Amino acid sequence: MSARRLDGRALAERWRDDVAREAQAFAASAGREPRLAVVLATDDDAASTYAAAKMRTAQALGVQVDLVRIAGPKTASLVETVERLGADEGVDGILIETPVALGVDLRAAQDAIPAAKDVDGASTQSLGRLFSGQTGFVPATAAAVIALLDGYGVEIAGRRAVVVGRSLVVGRPLGQLLLARDATVTVCHSRTGDLGAVTREADVVCMAVGRPRFLTGSMVRPGAVVVDVGTNVVGGKLVGDADFDSVAAVASAVSPVPGGVGPLTTLLVLENVARAARQRCGQAGL
Amino acid sequence: MSARRLDGRALAERWRDDVAREAQAFAASAGREPRLAVVLATDDDAASTYAAAKMRTAQALGVQVDLVRIAGPKTASLVETVERLGADEGVDGILIETPVALGVDLRAAQDAIPAAKDVDGASTQSLGRLFSGQTGFVPATAAAVIALLDGYGVEIAGRRAVVVGRSLVVGRPLGQLLLARDATVTVCHSRTGDLGAVTREADVVCMAVGRPRFLTGSMVRPGAVVVDVGTNVVGGKLVGDADFDSVAAVASAVSPVPGGVGPLTTLLVLENVARAARQRCGQAGL
Repeated sequence: MSARRLDGRALAERWRDDVAREAQAFAASAGREPRLAVVLATDDDAASTYAAAKMRTAQALGVQVDLVRIAGPKTASLVETVERLGADEGVDGILIETPVALGVDLRAAQDAIPAAKDVDGASTQSLGRLFSGQTGFVPATAAAVIALLDGYGVEIAGRRAVVVGRSLVVGRPLGQLLLARDATVTVCHSRTGDLGAVTREADVVCMAVGRPRFLTGSMVRPGAVVVDVGTNVVGGKLVGDADFDSVAAVASAVSPVPGGVGPLTTLLVLENVARAARQRCGQAGL
Repeated sequence: MSARRLDGRALAERWRDDVAREAQAFAASAGREPRLAVVLATDDDAASTYAAAKMRTAQALGVQVDLVRIAGPKTASLVETVERLGADEGVDGILIETPVALGVDLRAAQDAIPAAKDVDGASTQSLGRLFSGQTGFVPATAAAVIALLDGYGVEIAGRRAVVVGRSLVVGRPLGQLLLARDATVTVCHSRTGDLGAVTREADVVCMAVGRPRFLTGSMVRPGAVVVDVGTNVVGGKLVGDADFDSVAAVASAVSPVPGGVGPLTTLLVLENVARAARQRCGQAGL
């Protein structure tokens, strides 16, 4: 195994001081920390775990995270909560943790997040801005993949990138980000026939499909770079969408799970909160 | 040459009665024809030609088209005009003909179109809806490609589709429409290295790059389907992005230029106007 390990944790360690400085700069002028409201509209354990992870990192960086739990969630109460947080001058960023409870209209709730506070780029408006190449907040997990590639100096422009998965949180926005960086981008999914034939064409393979150890070494071109966005729990252990060992035997670089994209995602969300705070207060003339 | 000719003009002839019926149904209940405002914010000849073509087709179908010319266009006056049309109860659809004059902020003007009247799917909101898989109006040229494929029974699901070009009017929205129809989609562009190697992988190649006769037979897999969205004027003649004869010798089907995607695009815009009219008046309780 000769593949380089795309260590997102190490990168996050290096970059966290920048985010902490941004948070401090805001706090110095505003007299309070930047503040993110994480809305939990589910009893789902995974959502709680993600939220708790964000809180731990945030605390160390000087970003305040409020957990807003919606009991017995209904779409109307969720939308009302988001609207209330949207109007709250003390809240800089809003993130709805997914999954949400069955039957809740996540789209309506996400669209209630004002663009200036949409730190995970979830609203239709934010997605439209991403799709049309305008500036704005983009889904943090997709942005984290780009940050990981950039952090390790992986060239994107002119390369062939294959994204496996077409979710609205990762696959589709990642495809747009790679396209904006001048990659030739292919998006694959469950209806793709011979997946290996497609991934073997790629200089960069991004796995975001939610199938444990789905990508094996035989599906990767020698020397390719593999970024694994999968977070599957198998036997109580977190495993990615790539079979790390067999892929690492062929690829030139692979991101591990955990410790790859995940730490960067959290950091990027918190950086967006600090930025949102500074931008909003800049507008308000503070 | 054995390739089937994907004749958009013939399809448009077959479908125009449906659109005319929709327009009539509205007229019967509202006492006026559905009405599209085409905004011309340029002296560009091409834009005027497109607008004139829409007017001719519209007249025959019972859709009223108003040409709204902005003299000495500035972004502010263009946005004001669009806002006025947006508030006008007698206007059902708004389309800003492109290109617009140099220095005009097309995005600001497009974003001033209310979603219910955005019959060419141009606003950030409409594009966000398309990108996130919500219902709504989509860019008509991209929709016309799908209509042409459907009209000739070309299977999309599970096939490899390659889109050459990443414009916001065709390439990117078409990529999303093909993805929503379960194709494995690759988007290529000027920075794609070996374009022929990519297009040869495709079951369906869509050309939307604006380079006359750019795709040749050697870049197409035998039996593939080629849809040509290019409209290039060469020596006073309209030619596509595909070299029709050499492509037709290899492909199983090719759309000609003119007479392929173009006639369907116009028809789809006018159908959207009739639909917009009926939907708005349904909401207003007429």
